[in-house]
Amino acid sequence: MRAVEYADGIVKILDQTLLPHKTSYIKCKTTEQIADAINSMKVRGAPAISIAAAYGMALNKNPEKAAELLKSTRPTAVDLTNAVDFVLRKIQFTIPPVEAAKDWENKISDSCKKASEHASLLLNNGHKILTHCNTGYLAANMHGTALGAIKIAHEMGKNIHIYTCETRPRCQGALASFELLESKIPHTVIVDSCAGWLMKQEKIDMVMLGADRIVKNGDLANKIGTYQLALLAKEHNIPFYVVAPLSSFDFNLDSGEKIPIEERSGDEILKVQNKQLYPKATKTYNPAFDVTPGGLVRSYVNEFGIFRNMKEIENLWRRNQ
Amino acid sequence: MRAVEYADGIVKILDQTLLPHKTSYIKCKTTEQIADAINSMKVRGAPAISIAAAYGMALNKNPEKAAELLKSTRPTAVDLTNAVDFVLRKIQFTIPPVEAAKDWENKISDSCKKASEHASLLLNNGHKILTHCNTGYLAANMHGTALGAIKIAHEMGKNIHIYTCETRPRCQGALASFELLESKIPHTVIVDSCAGWLMKQEKIDMVMLGADRIVKNGDLANKIGTYQLALLAKEHNIPFYVVAPLSSFDFNLDSGEKIPIEERSGDEILKVQNKQLYPKATKTYNPAFDVTPGGLVRSYVNEFGIFRNMKEIENLWRRNQ
Repeated sequence: MRAVEYADGIVKILDQTLLPHKTSYIKCKTTEQIADAINSMKVRGAPAISIAAAYGMALNKNPEKAAELLKSTRPTAVDLTNAVDFVLRKIQFTIPPVEAAKDWENKISDSCKKASEHASLLLNNGHKILTHCNTGYLAANMHGTALGAIKIAHEMGKNIHIYTCETRPRCQGALASFELLESKIPHTVIVDSCAGWLMKQEKIDMVMLGADRIVKNGDLANKIGTYQLALLAKEHNIPFYVVAPLSSFDFNLDSGEKIPIEERSGDEILKVQNKQLYPKATKTYNPAFDVTPGGLVRSYVNEFGIFRNMKEIENLWRRNQ
Repeated sequence: MRAVEYADGIVKILDQTLLPHKTSYIKCKTTEQIADAINSMKVRGAPAISIAAAYGMALNKNPEKAAELLKSTRPTAVDLTNAVDFVLRKIQFTIPPVEAAKDWENKISDSCKKASEHASLLLNNGHKILTHCNTGYLAANMHGTALGAIKIAHEMGKNIHIYTCETRPRCQGALASFELLESKIPHTVIVDSCAGWLMKQEKIDMVMLGADRIVKNGDLANKIGTYQLALLAKEHNIPFYVVAPLSSFDFNLDSGEKIPIEERSGDEILKVQNKQLYPKATKTYNPAFDVTPGGLVRSYVNEFGIFRNMKEIENLWRRNQ
C-alpha cells in the first residue's frame, strides 16, 4: 500500500481520511484534484504531500499556474515547495514534468529510507519510544521517517515498545497504530495529555518524531504538540530526536519565528467523524503546527546520518540543492 | 440547572454524557443506580460525585453495603469517600441519612462558592486564563471551583478570556464551553497539545483548575494532563492555581505516590460517541488522572482563602474534620 502512486496520467491517492476503517483510493487527473486532496488531508505528511505535489505539476500544461496553486495548499511543510521548485527547475532543462516528478519521488523515498536506517541505530533493545503524529509510509510513501526507523529496528529483532500520542485534532495516532499493527510492533496509544505523566513514571526512554520544516538555527515546525513534548522531554532528561530528510530543511530561514504556521478550520476540533462534540457557538484556535526551539533537540537524523551540528547539515544541504 | 438534585426519595442526575446536545435527567431510586451514574460519568467532577454519593447513602437501608459500593466507584477523588464517611458518622448520631446528605450538599455548595469567590480575586482585567476539564456547576452543583471563580470575575465586570483544553478522552472542554457560553464569557477551545504553544506565544497569564485529591505535601491528583500543564506553566513562568474545597484535601496521605489513580476503559480513547476511531486491535493506556507535585503550585484556594503553605491548610482541615 502506498500513499501516492502515479501511472498513465493518473495520480492514485490513498484516502487517509477513511483509514483505518476503509482502504479507498481517489484518482486525480488534474492539478486541482491534487491540491484538493492535499488541502483536505486525504494525503498528508510532509514527504507524501511533496510527492503528490510533484505529480500535481505533471498534470498541468501551465507550470506557473500549477506551482502557484499547489504552493498555496499547505504553507508549513517546506518539502512541498521544494518539490514544486524541483519540477520547475527540471522543466527548464526540457525534462518532461512527469519524469521530474518521478525523480522527486525516488529521491524522497531513498532519503527517507536512509534517514530511517540511520535513526534505527538510536533504538536499542528494551527501549520505550514516544512518538507523535504518523511518520510511517502513509506520511512518506514506501518508507517512513521516525516510524520507518521503528520498523527497521523491529525487523532487526530489537525488542522495543512504542507509545503513540493520539495527536488531536486529526488523530493521526490511529494511522500510526494502523501501521504498527500491520508490522506487529507492540504499541500503546495515549491521549496527548498523558505524555508528561508517562515520562514522570519513567516509561519513556526517548521521543522520536518527524518535522515539516527545520530552519538554520535548528528550530523546527512539526505537528501541534511537538513543542510541549520537547519541553517535557527536557524536564525529564529524555532525548528528543527528529528524523527528516534534507528536503524538510530550509536554510533560507534564520529562525522558527519566520515559519508560516497553518491554521485549520475549528471543525477539526468541534466535530469528530462529522459528529458535533461541542456547542455550535464554540470558538477554537487550531494551529496545525507549532515551533520547537533547536536547543531542545538532541539530534537530527537525515539521509546522511545523525547530526547535532546545524552547520554540518547546512553544508550538506547546500551541496545537495 | 443542577448536576444532582434530591426530592422525595428520588435523586435526579443530569446526564452529562449527553451534553451539550441534550438536557436529560436520570432518576435514581437505588444506591446501585447512583453508583452506575458515577461509574459511567453521567455525573462527574469531585464535588458533584460526592453529593451524588451522599444521596446514594440515603437510598439504602444497609449503610455499610451502600458505603462499600459507592466507595468502589471512582477511587481518586477523596471527596466521594469523605461524603460517604460524613453520612456514616451522622447516622451514628441517629440523624436520618437523607438529612445528612442534604447537610453534605449544603456544606460542599457553600465551600465551593466561597473558594471560587476567593479565587476570583486572582483574576484581573485583561487576564487570559488557561483551564482544563470542567470545573463549573456541572462538576460541583450550583457553584463551580475554578470555573466558578471565572464566572464571578466576569460578573464583577472584569474583562477576561478563557482558553479551555478539550481534555481528551472525555472532552470535558465541551462542558466548560457549554457553561461559558451560558454565561457569555469569551473563550476559546484548544486541543490539549496546544497548551504549551499558547504559553510560548505569551497568550496565557495563568492556569487555574480544580483537584480531585490534594495530600499533605501539596501533591495533587487531577484530570490527566494537569501534570504536564503545571510543568509547562513553570517553564513559561506562568502561575498555576488550584481551586478546591477542603473536602478535596487528604492529610492522611503524605505524598502523591500514594493516591490511587483510576484507569478507565480504552474505549474512551478508541471510540468517540460510539464511533470507532482506531483499529479494533489497538491497545491503550488510559489513566483518568495524574499527579502534580506540590512544588509546581503557586497557590491553593479553598473556602478559607488563598494559601501557599500546606501546614496552614492542614490546620484548617483538622479543625474542620
